[in-house]
Amino acid sequence: MTRSRTSDPAGLTPKGQRTRAHIVAVAADLMFENSVAQTTIEDVRIAAGVSNSQIYHYFSDKSELIRAVIDHQTDAVLEPQQPIFSRLDTWEGLRDWRDYAVNHQKELNCRGGCPIASLSGQLAETDDAARLQLALSFRRWSAGLRSGLLAMAERGVLAADADPEQLAVVLLTSLQGGLLLTQLERDVTPLETALDAALEHVRRRMTTVPA
Amino acid sequence: MTRSRTSDPAGLTPKGQRTRAHIVAVAADLMFENSVAQTTIEDVRIAAGVSNSQIYHYFSDKSELIRAVIDHQTDAVLEPQQPIFSRLDTWEGLRDWRDYAVNHQKELNCRGGCPIASLSGQLAETDDAARLQLALSFRRWSAGLRSGLLAMAERGVLAADADPEQLAVVLLTSLQGGLLLTQLERDVTPLETALDAALEHVRRRMTTVPA
Repeated sequence: MTRSRTSDPAGLTPKGQRTRAHIVAVAADLMFENSVAQTTIEDVRIAAGVSNSQIYHYFSDKSELIRAVIDHQTDAVLEPQQPIFSRLDTWEGLRDWRDYAVNHQKELNCRGGCPIASLSGQLAETDDAARLQLALSFRRWSAGLRSGLLAMAERGVLAADADPEQLAVVLLTSLQGGLLLTQLERDVTPLETALDAALEHVRRRMTTVPA
Repeated sequence: MTRSRTSDPAGLTPKGQRTRAHIVAVAADLMFENSVAQTTIEDVRIAAGVSNSQIYHYFSDKSELIRAVIDHQTDAVLEPQQPIFSRLDTWEGLRDWRDYAVNHQKELNCRGGCPIASLSGQLAETDDAARLQLALSFRRWSAGLRSGLLAMAERGVLAADADPEQLAVVLLTSLQGGLLLTQLERDVTPLETALDAALEHVRRRMTTVPA
């Protein structure tokens, strides 16, 4: 007997897609709170309130579930930032992005860090397919930041020799390094310090320098 | 029967200290390569070539072993950097620190990321004692960086309004964010980009700006 491959949600009915999405959201929460290694398919099955046959209908093994969780967390992190990315072509937009990141950590009491970085720390050296998928997640993130900086360059607000690609990496790495220390210290200060330095780095390349 | 507490190496004989250090080094390698969760005391015992009574003589449980591994990895990361920290009071010293970090990743083929960040990603939300210990590890790191910047300030090479504490956080968060993307991409470029931005941040605060 062959089981149909349903790990790609595109082939599912709307009800099937909802069930699958529910399982993935539950798995993402459990893996974020208890770590990937300490989350079993059985834990997810019980927390999601589905049967054995249901969960194995959607995910043939834990690896497949992990792939879906990476996609889920990437969307969860990036989708709320899309409106912010589109306004990163102004100094005010950059400030708003910085404040969004800081305020988000304050709301979380600095717990959890970045969900994508958390998965990276757990999977990068033990699951090479996951590592590649996580690298793509960060490329999506970097591309979101770059889009605003490219718009800034097109408007002539960014110095001609400034590289939007590199500036996006500076913003993203500063965010990630700041999040790590903020998570460990349960204090938003390292994140603020890192992001303020990154914003200064961009500002110094703006032809119309804000006050 | 009470077992003597031997988790503090200070109370051990030289031979006991060597055996304990060997077990910790083996545990650190296993946890770095296979993750903390997937490393059992039994795995460590076998890899270290010691008996059950030996390993439990030194570590009453896995938590105690994890604490020792955090200390071990912190020393392993920071001790080679001590001579570099002492020269961070010049632009050449800062460049050397940057090159050391980049070359170290090249030697590792960008595998593994930062051992302390790796432990943080795995333990910060599931083991609060470990989180606090890891926060202290990064404070030690930050203090090492700050010492050079303070010496720079004392020599009058750093602008009076520059904050060595904040500059150290910028260097450390840039390093950590860069290491994360470099690990995922298996490419040293994001680390170079992040560190170059951090060094520029310091350079702009130097009163004698190098060429």
